[in-house]
Amino acid sequence: MFVLVNLKTYPCDPLAIARAAREVAETTAARIAVAPQAAHIERVAGTGVETWAQHVDPIDYGSNTGHTLAETVADAGAVGTLINHSENRLKLADVDGSVRAADRAGLETVVCANNPAQIAAAAALGPDAVAVEPPELIGTGTPVSQADPEIVEGAVEAAEHVDAEVSVLCGAGISTGDDVVAAGDLGSEGVLLASGVAKADDPTAALEDLVAPL
Amino acid sequence: MFVLVNLKTYPCDPLAIARAAREVAETTAARIAVAPQAAHIERVAGTGVETWAQHVDPIDYGSNTGHTLAETVADAGAVGTLINHSENRLKLADVDGSVRAADRAGLETVVCANNPAQIAAAAALGPDAVAVEPPELIGTGTPVSQADPEIVEGAVEAAEHVDAEVSVLCGAGISTGDDVVAAGDLGSEGVLLASGVAKADDPTAALEDLVAPL
Amino acid sequence: MFVLVNLKTYPCDPLAIARAAREVAETTAARIAVAPQAAHIERVAGTGVETWAQHVDPIDYGSNTGHTLAETVADAGAVGTLINHSENRLKLADVDGSVRAADRAGLETVVCANNPAQIAAAAALGPDAVAVEPPELIGTGTPVSQADPEIVEGAVEAAEHVDAEVSVLCGAGISTGDDVVAAGDLGSEGVLLASGVAKADDPTAALEDLVAPL
Amino acid sequence: MFVLVNLKTYPCDPLAIARAAREVAETTAARIAVAPQAAHIERVAGTGVETWAQHVDPIDYGSNTGHTLAETVADAGAVGTLINHSENRLKLADVDGSVRAADRAGLETVVCANNPAQIAAAAALGPDAVAVEPPELIGTGTPVSQADPEIVEGAVEAAEHVDAEVSVLCGAGISTGDDVVAAGDLGSEGVLLASGVAKADDPTAALEDLVAPL
Repeated sequence: MFVLVNLKTYPCDPLAIARAAREVAETTAARIAVAPQAAHIERVAGTGVETWAQHVDPIDYGSNTGHTLAETVADAGAVGTLINHSENRLKLADVDGSVRAADRAGLETVVCANNPAQIAAAAALGPDAVAVEPPELIGTGTPVSQADPEIVEGAVEAAEHVDAEVSVLCGAGISTGDDVVAAGDLGSEGVLLASGVAKADDPTAALEDLVAPL
Repeated sequence: MFVLVNLKTYPCDPLAIARAAREVAETTAARIAVAPQAAHIERVAGTGVETWAQHVDPIDYGSNTGHTLAETVADAGAVGTLINHSENRLKLADVDGSVRAADRAGLETVVCANNPAQIAAAAALGPDAVAVEPPELIGTGTPVSQADPEIVEGAVEAAEHVDAEVSVLCGAGISTGDDVVAAGDLGSEGVLLASGVAKADDPTAALEDLVAPL
Repeated sequence: MFVLVNLKTYPCDPLAIARAAREVAETTAARIAVAPQAAHIERVAGTGVETWAQHVDPIDYGSNTGHTLAETVADAGAVGTLINHSENRLKLADVDGSVRAADRAGLETVVCANNPAQIAAAAALGPDAVAVEPPELIGTGTPVSQADPEIVEGAVEAAEHVDAEVSVLCGAGISTGDDVVAAGDLGSEGVLLASGVAKADDPTAALEDLVAPL
Repeated sequence: MFVLVNLKTYPCDPLAIARAAREVAETTAARIAVAPQAAHIERVAGTGVETWAQHVDPIDYGSNTGHTLAETVADAGAVGTLINHSENRLKLADVDGSVRAADRAGLETVVCANNPAQIAAAAALGPDAVAVEPPELIGTGTPVSQADPEIVEGAVEAAEHVDAEVSVLCGAGISTGDDVVAAGDLGSEGVLLASGVAKADDPTAALEDLVAPL
């Protein structure tokens, strides 16, 4: 299972979480990565943890003031990127462009979407993985695997139909090892989570609990 | 073949084109529709021509000042709508929402996209049809069927793989009957066109030429 | 006082409200206008009521599929337009462009904004009027003139400092004649309202109540 | 004069330019700052050069995946930020929100705009400075101070009328010391430039030439 911890723009200490993630990753079979804000990527990558970007723009080198170039986040140490997170929805043509840009820069890609139809659409654009996150469950503590298992199964089936090589992750409300196991049982190859780790008093303990059953 | 004439915000007389389209449609096997601006839908539909909207928003009845509600364009006389035209690109989640909104209001849907990967993505959202229009050919007079036949074939194949019930149209640079025939030979079930008719000195003659070989 | 009734995408009968507004306008000193959706402008204008658009895009004639051209809403019968309503926020450069487009088409302009600083910014772009509408009060039934009189006074002062020829309207929560009078006492030359009339069982009675004290 | 070098997403070496800027700044009366991409801020700030962000979002700490938080770019070493650059236009309400966010994080602010009317609007939002950059001159090598001196004078006058405490910078096509002097003669207190330095074979020489006449 792949556990991707999205730090959003939370008031957390990205270094503390990065070190906790690296430590826990070393002691388990789980793959754990941390996605800080762009301006923190270099610092987080410096800890040795697998580091992801939260977004890249559908652009190439050029006149793009204020945008996020895939090559630059890679240069700062990112090895993958989220695209089209529900807090950062992109135009369909730009999801395509951002996947292309990330590929060009050697970044692994996870494209997020709300429901099985959008997951199929995202899978058609050829990312490494898609992630289904029902927006209404994000930040609730009610795991998608429990609240809406059909949406995860539907997403797995939809992605498989379009392109069997695209993995499916799921997110929203994931905070315990049981949630991670349940996600895997529904066909998901990983989970996206955020507040469950980023807002935990003890991120190491939170991550250990998440990966314990794996 | 379905011939959909997009009037964009051209300085044309929408009534003259609507009457020409209705007249030509009556004398051929081709299905011809006209897509005026929202504020002209009622007037155009009054001519009896098949009338389409150029866009609907991913919204329901409510507090959406300045937006285009599917039910309202239907009430004004539209029976279908373009979605995600290259001059009006939408977020992936909003393409989904606009298709849902159009379905709810009984409007037929054509979702536009740039290339086969995006066509597959669009088809995954369940519209009635998708339309491939390479943006670099729009308005050029060089028909996509000639300049880039692989993109039309690729679009047909991509849509078929995802959902065989979704028709494929093509557009960009179409202006003659030969272009329409070529589009059909590549697997397209219709064409989108704009300036070729909307800017013609004699729209009736332009439309007659387009459908003559059918 | 100017009373501008925004029909948004409410499930109301635009003709019934238009007729009520025309009738009440004829019997009072108040100026009353109705802003329907673009696809309903021609029908509403046909009643003889003063008709406004809810939005125009910062564009000219050309290739702008799905956009709202100022000349077209004017052709359909609109004599003015809202710009930058809180449900349809525009880029700063596009507020400028939309005001220019509306001017070009002979449409009167009201640019909406949230607070005195934004009102000053809007006034600097040279519209006929600005309208301050604190988003948190829209649709509440608590009139801005009561909940936050300083914001109206601040807006009047801010607009005056930048360009004394720009009128100030206010909106949000207005539903009674007393609210209209209070708005006038704070320096406002008109009110924007929506649900108070558009969702009223008897729009004529609602409008009569609004203008009774004038 | 303030010389702000915007690195956009150019394929330049940000460290080489940062070091050149720091070196030249130390030997002249001019204030020189460099604005790299967010993911390069920490590295650039490490050279000791004055470092700016290219953009901050109108957000606070929270659930904002993929966005740029003012506090985070400040934490990485930025002391100021561009807002609303012509390659990254924001909604009017978001220009206001981004200025507020930057103020909260202690970042100096420069809001960009196209013309005197928009400069007045930007000044009304209370930034430290505004920058007028006619989009058609960006990247041309034809300096705004020569091609369109009235736009700079108009911007200075417009900002002054709205808020005399807001400085005015200008940009577009600036590449020589004469351009900088001309900008100052028109009332500008600084210049924005990009390719003239970022694409120079020898950034130190380019910067020395720029500030030599000061």
